[in-house]
Amino acid sequence: MSDVTETNDVGGVAGERLRSFIERIERLEEEKAALAADVREVYAEAKGTGFDTKIMRQIIKLRKMDDNDRQETESLLDVYKHALGME
Amino acid sequence: MSDVTETNDVGGVAGERLRSFIERIERLEEEKAALAADVREVYAEAKGTGFDTKIMRQIIKLRKMDDNDRQETESLLDVYKHALGME
Repeated sequence: MSDVTETNDVGGVAGERLRSFIERIERLEEEKAALAADVREVYAEAKGTGFDTKIMRQIIKLRKMDDNDRQETESLLDVYKHALGME
Repeated sequence: MSDVTETNDVGGVAGERLRSFIERIERLEEEKAALAADVREVYAEAKGTGFDTKIMRQIIKLRKMDDNDRQETESLLDVYKHALGME
């Protein structure tokens, strides 16, 4: 990333306008990356406390689903396991 | 997600502690999702202004690389194109 702020309209491209869009996106992406780092930290902390983070990720996925979807998924999972003698 | 706040220690799992980790992660993930929506909005706005968002994404990727890496990538790309008669 450069400190040069001059921009030019080249080939019909409005430099200032483009730069503003690009920089807005970059700022948002930086904030997203910071949050992703925070998430990793919480998982690390949970792991340090003795929780299994793989199971935590599954729980979070299940909590995202509404109750009906979750029940349907879980009962289908049971049916398939049963069919394959996985019990 | 349930409103029930009671948690129990089951199988050595400290319910309150686990709930706190899970909810922290969920809040962070919600913030991340909101930022991702903001990014999509900026792209949509840029597209509405006439910019090609595919090219914008490439520019953002290039700006993330340091100058040396970018120059190396670009010159290698040229070499490969040349080798394949793509010019």
